[in-house]
Amino acid sequence: MEKGDRKRPIGVFDSGVGGLTVLRALRSQLPAEDFVYLGDTARVPYGTKSAKSVTRYALQAARVLVDRGIKQLVVACNTASAVALEALEAAYRPLPVVGVVEPGAEACCRLSVTGHVAVIGTEGTIRGGAYQRAIRRFRPDARIVARPCSLFVALAEEGWVRGELVEAIVARYLEPILGGGSPTRPDCLVLGCTHFPPLSDAIRSVAGAGVTLVDSAETTAVAVKNGLEIAGLLNAGGEGKTHFLATDGIARFCRVGEIFLGEPISPETVELVDL
Amino acid sequence: MEKGDRKRPIGVFDSGVGGLTVLRALRSQLPAEDFVYLGDTARVPYGTKSAKSVTRYALQAARVLVDRGIKQLVVACNTASAVALEALEAAYRPLPVVGVVEPGAEACCRLSVTGHVAVIGTEGTIRGGAYQRAIRRFRPDARIVARPCSLFVALAEEGWVRGELVEAIVARYLEPILGGGSPTRPDCLVLGCTHFPPLSDAIRSVAGAGVTLVDSAETTAVAVKNGLEIAGLLNAGGEGKTHFLATDGIARFCRVGEIFLGEPISPETVELVDL
Repeated sequence: MEKGDRKRPIGVFDSGVGGLTVLRALRSQLPAEDFVYLGDTARVPYGTKSAKSVTRYALQAARVLVDRGIKQLVVACNTASAVALEALEAAYRPLPVVGVVEPGAEACCRLSVTGHVAVIGTEGTIRGGAYQRAIRRFRPDARIVARPCSLFVALAEEGWVRGELVEAIVARYLEPILGGGSPTRPDCLVLGCTHFPPLSDAIRSVAGAGVTLVDSAETTAVAVKNGLEIAGLLNAGGEGKTHFLATDGIARFCRVGEIFLGEPISPETVELVDL
Repeated sequence: MEKGDRKRPIGVFDSGVGGLTVLRALRSQLPAEDFVYLGDTARVPYGTKSAKSVTRYALQAARVLVDRGIKQLVVACNTASAVALEALEAAYRPLPVVGVVEPGAEACCRLSVTGHVAVIGTEGTIRGGAYQRAIRRFRPDARIVARPCSLFVALAEEGWVRGELVEAIVARYLEPILGGGSPTRPDCLVLGCTHFPPLSDAIRSVAGAGVTLVDSAETTAVAVKNGLEIAGLLNAGGEGKTHFLATDGIARFCRVGEIFLGEPISPETVELVDL
């Protein structure tokens, strides 16, 4: 790419609103960059769909972002990162593509002292085993426990993110994988779903001080920043604008999206697109 | 339709596996009929999608069932019943089409003594107001409270259907609408989502003995039976076979579907279709 390319926006793609946690982290790391965020709200969730369908959806979504002239694609959806990253790289070469799985796995391996780690995510992500494979690439001796926490998505979207009831639900999922005072208790827990960061406080409270939480959103934002820097594509003089695209339900995108972005989304900034 | 038509199967359509509770009730009411069930598992859930998208999906799904020669269409999805019924009737006339909203609303109005009733469902169903409108058609003086219970879908799919934690979640949703000993306390509660029947015991336990539960699946099955009888289309000599169609994820359809159908589903009986 050429120098003028650095002014192009960064494209962020997710199955819905969960990826707004990744956008939030990206905007915090890269306040002068412009972003185009696409939430495929018409076909959310990807977590329960087949790899073939998810790959097809991801390619369609990326096409829209590529047509908007992005300089970097961030796959903020764990499910799509797990199954569609190679297809995306092949289809849109030489566009740099970063998913959320690799940075999360890498950070987890770096932060774990014992090498005993836990991963939680949607059914699709956990069953697909992408985090488990990525962690083993960085640390072949890792002992990994993994569990889908299907209710967490609904909890976060409902805005039920703290309190006794939420912690009881979190405990029901985490206790079997975090165990008690066992010597094989994981010391690191990867939040392998973009919907989970709003539940961080409840998860931290249940997991206890001995477990470090790895938020894929944060680690991905750092990876994107480093990649752009190395490629000479960082934009120091942008306006930090974000344009939102959604494939359905703008009102809901704004209302629920606010939970994940951490600030209000105005309906006028959201464009409806058909994939 | 002609007499030979009575041997044709009944088509049942849902956004996913929830409609299997309706199929279960239909098979119980009509054990000699054959069924074709289509679960649009690639695009589930409909509850959070726009009316326009849901109508388009419903028309596509119905097309597949019509091409299989059905004599009756049952829209087992509350969201699609709420927004797409007229479009379906217009598109496939003279095929009889029954949704789940009308029978549920009618039963609720018949069973309520006080006329104070409550409706729970997905976000899309409740916000769309179809149950509220249908109830007012049958009983203009009805006092209606309605609430989306978004977590119930995830609970049922996870198989978390009883116990203290489940009842605490149910109570958090129901207490604000069922009130305490208030004289305006509803005496009837419509389960306006096909995913909710597996949670009946927990809901009944929280609601208490003074509240009658209306299961749309049961009332719809009775309505279908009556309709076929009047039209002279009842099949007394069929084999009671069911053929399943799903738009994605056959393994998950069988595994999760079992919770809603109440019996195992063999993968060989499920055909993958593309809409």
